Amino acid sequence: MIPEMLQIEVLRDGYRQEKFTPRDVMLEVLKRIDVYDDPAVWISRVEESEILARAGKLQQDSTLMAHLPLYGVPFAVKDNMDVRGMPTTAACPAFAHTPEKSASAIDALLAAGAILIGKTNLDQFATGLNGTRSPYGAPRCVFDHRFISGGSSSGSAVAVAAGLVAFSLGTDTAGSGRVPAAFNNVVGWKPTKGLISAAGVLPAVRSQDCVSIFASSCADAKIIAEIAQGFDAQDPYSREGERVSLPTKRFRFGVLRPDDREFFGDEEAAALYAGAIDRLTARGGRPVEIDYAPFQQAAALLYDGAFVAERFAAIEDFFRTHAQEMDPQVRQIIGKASNLSAADAFNGEYRLRAIARAAEREWERFDVMLLPTAPTIFSVDQIAEDPIGANSRLGVYTHFVNLLDYAAIAVPAGFRATSCLPFGVTLIGPAFSDFDLAVIADGLHRSLGEGVGKAVGAAAEPPVSVVEPASRGRILLAVAGAHLSGLPLNRELTDLGAIFVEATRTAPSYRLVALKGTMPPKPGLVHAPGFEGPGIEVELWSLSERDFGRFVAGVPAPMGIGKVRLASGAVVPGFLCEVFALDGGEDITALGGWRPYLAEHAAASD
Amino acid sequence: MIPEMLQIEVLRDGYRQEKFTPRDVMLEVLKRIDVYDDPAVWISRVEESEILARAGKLQQDSTLMAHLPLYGVPFAVKDNMDVRGMPTTAACPAFAHTPEKSASAIDALLAAGAILIGKTNLDQFATGLNGTRSPYGAPRCVFDHRFISGGSSSGSAVAVAAGLVAFSLGTDTAGSGRVPAAFNNVVGWKPTKGLISAAGVLPAVRSQDCVSIFASSCADAKIIAEIAQGFDAQDPYSREGERVSLPTKRFRFGVLRPDDREFFGDEEAAALYAGAIDRLTARGGRPVEIDYAPFQQAAALLYDGAFVAERFAAIEDFFRTHAQEMDPQVRQIIGKASNLSAADAFNGEYRLRAIARAAEREWERFDVMLLPTAPTIFSVDQIAEDPIGANSRLGVYTHFVNLLDYAAIAVPAGFRATSCLPFGVTLIGPAFSDFDLAVIADGLHRSLGEGVGKAVGAAAEPPVSVVEPASRGRILLAVAGAHLSGLPLNRELTDLGAIFVEATRTAPSYRLVALKGTMPPKPGLVHAPGFEGPGIEVELWSLSERDFGRFVAGVPAPMGIGKVRLASGAVVPGFLCEVFALDGGEDITALGGWRPYLAEHAAASD
Repeated sequence: MIPEMLQIEVLRDGYRQEKFTPRDVMLEVLKRIDVYDDPAVWISRVEESEILARAGKLQQDSTLMAHLPLYGVPFAVKDNMDVRGMPTTAACPAFAHTPEKSASAIDALLAAGAILIGKTNLDQFATGLNGTRSPYGAPRCVFDHRFISGGSSSGSAVAVAAGLVAFSLGTDTAGSGRVPAAFNNVVGWKPTKGLISAAGVLPAVRSQDCVSIFASSCADAKIIAEIAQGFDAQDPYSREGERVSLPTKRFRFGVLRPDDREFFGDEEAAALYAGAIDRLTARGGRPVEIDYAPFQQAAALLYDGAFVAERFAAIEDFFRTHAQEMDPQVRQIIGKASNLSAADAFNGEYRLRAIARAAEREWERFDVMLLPTAPTIFSVDQIAEDPIGANSRLGVYTHFVNLLDYAAIAVPAGFRATSCLPFGVTLIGPAFSDFDLAVIADGLHRSLGEGVGKAVGAAAEPPVSVVEPASRGRILLAVAGAHLSGLPLNRELTDLGAIFVEATRTAPSYRLVALKGTMPPKPGLVHAPGFEGPGIEVELWSLSERDFGRFVAGVPAPMGIGKVRLASGAVVPGFLCEVFALDGGEDITALGGWRPYLAEHAAASD
Repeated sequence: MIPEMLQIEVLRDGYRQEKFTPRDVMLEVLKRIDVYDDPAVWISRVEESEILARAGKLQQDSTLMAHLPLYGVPFAVKDNMDVRGMPTTAACPAFAHTPEKSASAIDALLAAGAILIGKTNLDQFATGLNGTRSPYGAPRCVFDHRFISGGSSSGSAVAVAAGLVAFSLGTDTAGSGRVPAAFNNVVGWKPTKGLISAAGVLPAVRSQDCVSIFASSCADAKIIAEIAQGFDAQDPYSREGERVSLPTKRFRFGVLRPDDREFFGDEEAAALYAGAIDRLTARGGRPVEIDYAPFQQAAALLYDGAFVAERFAAIEDFFRTHAQEMDPQVRQIIGKASNLSAADAFNGEYRLRAIARAAEREWERFDVMLLPTAPTIFSVDQIAEDPIGANSRLGVYTHFVNLLDYAAIAVPAGFRATSCLPFGVTLIGPAFSDFDLAVIADGLHRSLGEGVGKAVGAAAEPPVSVVEPASRGRILLAVAGAHLSGLPLNRELTDLGAIFVEATRTAPSYRLVALKGTMPPKPGLVHAPGFEGPGIEVELWSLSERDFGRFVAGVPAPMGIGKVRLASGAVVPGFLCEVFALDGGEDITALGGWRPYLAEHAAASD
């Protein structure tokens, strides 16, 4: 039985347990696409025979399932990304060309075993947040076809939400990877700029574009992000950055002040936002009210300021010769840029820099931001009545994010009771915090306890996987003595931003010795292979590689950092002690840890 | 006796030994300025009474000398930087205004005890590399007044070279802090963009401007850089970056290919460049020929491309109303920008990004670059004949540096025998490598064995201080076994970019034990306080904090990293070994190290 929502782990489980094969899944996907009652989702599709041939090829080699993380996982890509041999239209037929090379990110996914199904519809030249600006029709909200899907990655969001593919790639400059996620009850991961290569993607605002991911869960999106990410010299905006850690258990999150909560009369959306704040608070977050002014000012630069000239630069030659073949709204927006001077462009940069400084000050008060993804949703008719104005209202909480260089993940946040239309919220974190941000976003999403995509209610299948905090770039340290929480040297860890992970014990083969004459008093943890004791109480703390390096450099003799085996069998860096320092010490192994010894000692000296 | 060149350490020595007081030095400075036969150096000067009052104030408090690193050190600033209460003209009288606040960098220097003497002449709006584009006259080369001083920081370079001040601040966008250093035989430090705050500096090309330093030696410039640097929220382009380390003893340096050595017929300059290559090779460098194409392409963007629009943006209102009051060449250059579109500006950015990728590939082959600072020098008459063309020839080796985000330090490199005019070379390093770059630049400068500024020949006073490699952000690691050079695990260090520092020994109180059953074979270094042995051979390797963290995390049990005392008495991180692993090992302390043991062992198994 192939599940309604094609979650990656569910597919992989099914393949492993031989419940179905990639060919079965592809046949099901093709059938679903045939019967799905929205003709505007796709701009072009991979030939059926080619899809089945690829599935067959995967099945021929029994070792592939274990080696390919996306073995037999069907996906779609937005039609502003190149796929070798298929036209790239950007939803503008006159612009279409057929590239000889696929976008780097798509190549990475194909190499991991994913199966491409087709290329999806979008707001022309990725200019729009509503999904109606396309000569290929307007994809509709999966819950009610009178409503917009959101855009510009309209078809990519719908394809996932309707269970037609497991995941899809979109692009996101102003919110194009988040707004349609909100309107279709799926996850929209807008990575840090430059994390996923944009080589082979038609630029919208080249300095601000991101390849984005739509999936059923943060866990699925994370799998895709891990595979698609990485430095690519082909993309001049590709970046290498050290992963930034966030506290994921206890954290401060910025929320809109009551006066700044603009939902354009959508009271149910307001209530769902408040509900998301409550749920995130229940998960260890502390809400902090944001001064939203700098973020609003940055947002205004994207369409009202000089950055729109990047949209013009991206298609300048085409615009000069084919403007009449463009969508009239897109033409109007991009055409504005032809009057802007180079000095305007640089003045826009300067203004953004100044705003970024104000935003930095706000960030000192919180670790992440929780905002509505879009303030409300519109019907296709409402957009037609005010195509530019309504569109720009959709972006009030998304426009600033790329300009100010943040990562963002949009997650479902419940349904309006009256209309049964979904609402979404977005978690926003600093650049390169993506993977820890996903931990918080995943927790918030799962706390909703509803299904994803159109699989809500009775058929609800909650996201299956749990996302763990990113370990890459982080090192765990086991401490057994004066660095334990609340003890004198713990500050050395917290001052470095170390994050408490858990309290646990060592394997039974460790002894603990209270050292003689150390100040503050310290124990030595000594490995005695073969010895069977109670195991020693340790705490695990997580540090960045750099902070770990600093910490180790600062540890004075006779202490050092080696490896410690935990009760779980895991081996992690932890405290050692030089041989000579054990002389005259007291073996306190039987107490099982340093705290009981301190307690006894304190009692004795009372 | 107040020295001809006012080096900081010489001044401080004189003050400490009471050879002279700040008042003496100020009187001498004022006298020198009076008699110096170039009327174009200064645009405005601090009142004599104010200078003497400040000197007097410093002398009143005997504790200040020890606490103020620039106690009584006279300096000048370029007149595009704000000094509270003095007009900022940017060499354009119609533009002059009197600010209420000084530039952040100037405040930092004043707070450190430096004494401001005045504001110096420049090419108007810092637009030029020759020094003649000013209604306040053209400062002249200190060696021959028929020749240009270079610009745009013309007066600042001359003030130092003529012994009128100890150091000065300039600005550097296209080479303005380097070219005049070369033409006046002083050091010109062009820091990494954003290292020194540009708050209070009139922008030239705001995204590319740097505050720069002129001084007699790299040692002096480093003192100033340490004081002036630091994040400043007032400057939107201020940056915080981790210091980047460079190998300073053995390193690869990029040089121009013979075909790319363009000196416009100045054969003596060509020979002096070749001589500098030889001297740097003798100091441990290995020359590597550069493909100069990407650097040349980047250079072209600065004046021929869209970045000139930043010059226009900086003074747009003034230009629209007062263009006729501007220097005609400056007006012509900046005026070109009014025709550039916003799309041109962004296309320039894209082009720069692509060029930067090509430049990154070149940098994989060398650690620093050594280039001529300027290919040749011109007389004032030659500039007058071809004011735009000759000027642009001066920048062929400087224009690209800020666009590609490098640090650069220009140092003297000898004199042309026929004309007695100085030639200079520039060391270029990655962003934030400034302080290690200074070590290499200082060595190269001192290897010349000549005086600085106009104090050459008989009156030569070589730069007094030695610059030491920056240690901040680097950690030393002592290795005693399989990680020694040439042994099996040494690659773990070199793969992380660890830098060999030296071979030395531990203190006598260490034993070395050949461990039983480790693969590859490893020794354990054991501290035995009180023991007197031969000391154990160790090598010191230097790693960044992050790489050190990675290295420690990867060290398997039973090894660990603690602290090791060296024969010198210094304590550094080094290898420890868990107690249990010593069981059954062989004490090989008497051999004095791991290599002799391996040699014996190899001999035994032959």
